[in-house]
Amino acid sequence: MTVHRIAAVDITPVAFGDLPLLNAVGVHETHAIRTIVEIRTDDGLTGLGETYADSAHLARLRRAADLVLGTDVWDLNGLVRAVADSLPGGQTTGGSGTAGMIASGSTVDRVFSPFEVACLDAQGKATGQPVSALLGGAVRDRVEFSAYLFYKWAGHPGSEPDRWGAALDPDGIVEQARRMISEYGFSAIKLKGGVFDPDEEIEAITALRAAFPDHPLRLDPNAAWSVPTSIRVGKSLDGLVEYLEDPTPGIEGMAEVAREVSMPLATNMCVVSFADLDPGIRQDAVQVVLSDHHFWGGLRRSTLLAGICDTFGLGLSMHSNSHLGISLAAMTHLAAATPNLTYACDTHWPWKDPAEDVIRPGALTFENGSVAVPTGPGLGVELDRDALGVLHEQYLACGITDRDDTGYMRRVDPTYERRTPRW
Amino acid sequence: MTVHRIAAVDITPVAFGDLPLLNAVGVHETHAIRTIVEIRTDDGLTGLGETYADSAHLARLRRAADLVLGTDVWDLNGLVRAVADSLPGGQTTGGSGTAGMIASGSTVDRVFSPFEVACLDAQGKATGQPVSALLGGAVRDRVEFSAYLFYKWAGHPGSEPDRWGAALDPDGIVEQARRMISEYGFSAIKLKGGVFDPDEEIEAITALRAAFPDHPLRLDPNAAWSVPTSIRVGKSLDGLVEYLEDPTPGIEGMAEVAREVSMPLATNMCVVSFADLDPGIRQDAVQVVLSDHHFWGGLRRSTLLAGICDTFGLGLSMHSNSHLGISLAAMTHLAAATPNLTYACDTHWPWKDPAEDVIRPGALTFENGSVAVPTGPGLGVELDRDALGVLHEQYLACGITDRDDTGYMRRVDPTYERRTPRW
Ligand SMILES: [Mg+2]
Ligand SMILES: [Mg+2]
Repeated sequence: MTVHRIAAVDITPVAFGDLPLLNAVGVHETHAIRTIVEIRTDDGLTGLGETYADSAHLARLRRAADLVLGTDVWDLNGLVRAVADSLPGGQTTGGSGTAGMIASGSTVDRVFSPFEVACLDAQGKATGQPVSALLGGAVRDRVEFSAYLFYKWAGHPGSEPDRWGAALDPDGIVEQARRMISEYGFSAIKLKGGVFDPDEEIEAITALRAAFPDHPLRLDPNAAWSVPTSIRVGKSLDGLVEYLEDPTPGIEGMAEVAREVSMPLATNMCVVSFADLDPGIRQDAVQVVLSDHHFWGGLRRSTLLAGICDTFGLGLSMHSNSHLGISLAAMTHLAAATPNLTYACDTHWPWKDPAEDVIRPGALTFENGSVAVPTGPGLGVELDRDALGVLHEQYLACGITDRDDTGYMRRVDPTYERRTPRW
Repeated sequence: MTVHRIAAVDITPVAFGDLPLLNAVGVHETHAIRTIVEIRTDDGLTGLGETYADSAHLARLRRAADLVLGTDVWDLNGLVRAVADSLPGGQTTGGSGTAGMIASGSTVDRVFSPFEVACLDAQGKATGQPVSALLGGAVRDRVEFSAYLFYKWAGHPGSEPDRWGAALDPDGIVEQARRMISEYGFSAIKLKGGVFDPDEEIEAITALRAAFPDHPLRLDPNAAWSVPTSIRVGKSLDGLVEYLEDPTPGIEGMAEVAREVSMPLATNMCVVSFADLDPGIRQDAVQVVLSDHHFWGGLRRSTLLAGICDTFGLGLSMHSNSHLGISLAAMTHLAAATPNLTYACDTHWPWKDPAEDVIRPGALTFENGSVAVPTGPGLGVELDRDALGVLHEQYLACGITDRDDTGYMRRVDPTYERRTPRW
């Protein structure tokens, strides 16, 4: 047995500029934060992972980093045990990097994820295989992503308008979509909702349908609506959206809505861990799961999720938070190796300044809304240490240690209150 | 990307001596038949798989062998497509090698399985990793198996008694158990039932409990009982067995029985493919699935099954048919890499003449009822070409091309009828 033991782990929090994107719990701050996980083996292999950087999560990553030392990069079962052993009992909430939008989920799976991706990257380097091959083989050369639209302010409070400008009504959203599609070529459109009165968001979807008659549309209000509101909006959107994402909180509420509306309901909020699948499936609460290797326990656990969706007749799409190139590479390999991932994946990529990343440029580019699956060993991306240093300095300078969309909104509007559901 | 394309496939049916083991549909014939699948890549890697040899299956394997040529051993998604493409539409029954005891299941998964195992064996040789590492890492060094008891005749009709002799009543079964446990060290016991009146089989279990107070016991009548009989027997066996295997046919019947008996119900007959999981789980028909990579689509699909069992709170054990060393190696790697496979696995190994196999001896030995997980590259077993030739000649000579336990029984007892359920 050829052994490649983890001999060193670097955990580096980084920050990159973000834009004032509005959602159901507030607004994106000036910077998004992420953690870069790098492993090195005793025989000189390296591997990369990327995850959230919220303080509770970062502390857990650092504890886990000590316990995974000595684990073979092929021994993913041993790796998950080491991560589980590193977690103090009971301390399982927080750190999901989703501003409280995903409250539960599996802490072990969240902490395990970047280490697992890094080990797969190292396995790929050891074998000359891309990560997609380690996951069962790419079934497509390119992975489709969707245009991820947000209501947004013109710029951060007190700053000049940013390069995307304001989008606060249907016209602004259509204009944003036109520009994003002309730059990236996306062939599906998702609107982050839960920001304005549902009728305004129905209008925005109607305007998008008129402007883009052939693009599948999605709306995601992040559980901002009650069950009756969800049913009413769902009926209004009949025939307009390919799926409706998390209209209302919880498995029971989603199941009630699902019985009354025509379109599939999708989720990255009520079925967010393996423990949620049994009740979610038995209650027919959701018809599409948005997978996300960052909280579903890495890439192989995400292929398990995909197999479960396939087995139980659920659709499969992919969720995104603000992310850098290591995550984009991992998402692309996973999507490529997942036959039943038939929806275009979400990505926040267009909202990031292309000059800001931790990987060397060129490995991942969008063309016609899709990214070519890297064919080099492992993830197929290379760490740019200088850039990593710059983004780490930015993390230290920006002072953000926990994503807090609600707090940022309240600094602008002290009357703002977080309410779920709001309408 | 390092490429290892399949350049040649050898499909070799073999036969090895079997004993007159009784079951719900008849009796084992003089020989068990299997197919050995060997692949060679363009860069000289080899890989081994083992599967059924029933004529319909063998014909499918031969068609698939042509279509998998050129597939990379890492591209398991491509491999399954090639296998699916090789199967003529509609022709999906037969060939399961279970004498009609498993009627449905997935033909693609059955045909795919030995090719997948062979590819994993080759991947292991390419990387220096044992198959258990390719499946996520061994969580145990040794895999426990159970003593698999059968009612049996003293010998095949017209022959001298075989080395195991008769076992046709509780005393005979206890005696068989004593010998098998003293030779192999098994710490769990399974009795193949469905042969005699259920009350006689309850007696046999009661006698085993008295003789082996600390060994978990199982009884498997292969769906020989009606629902009322299953409930009556299940109540009689309360506290005696760790699980009751397939008392009655079908998901609906099993669900009825499960509601009335105290012990978990296990199956390798009503939930035998991914398509059966949704109804089986929604109806709470079974509490333990007996996995079997030969019909669940190979080793990675079996880890998917394991993940599904873990997710939905089902127990997991492992099914066996008469098999040779390649299958034993594959079963051992799979069990080692499956954290939630907590029951001792079934194996027919003790019923095989130790001198008959297609692998070089020494790789797999039983000690205290368990087999050490091979740590060499791939499956860790090596083909013995001379032995393969001998067993292939035996296949040609014995004339058995389809397992037919019922037909063999009828040659001895022309009044024998196959009935499910019988009691
Ligand atoms: Mg969402
Ligand atoms: Mg059975």
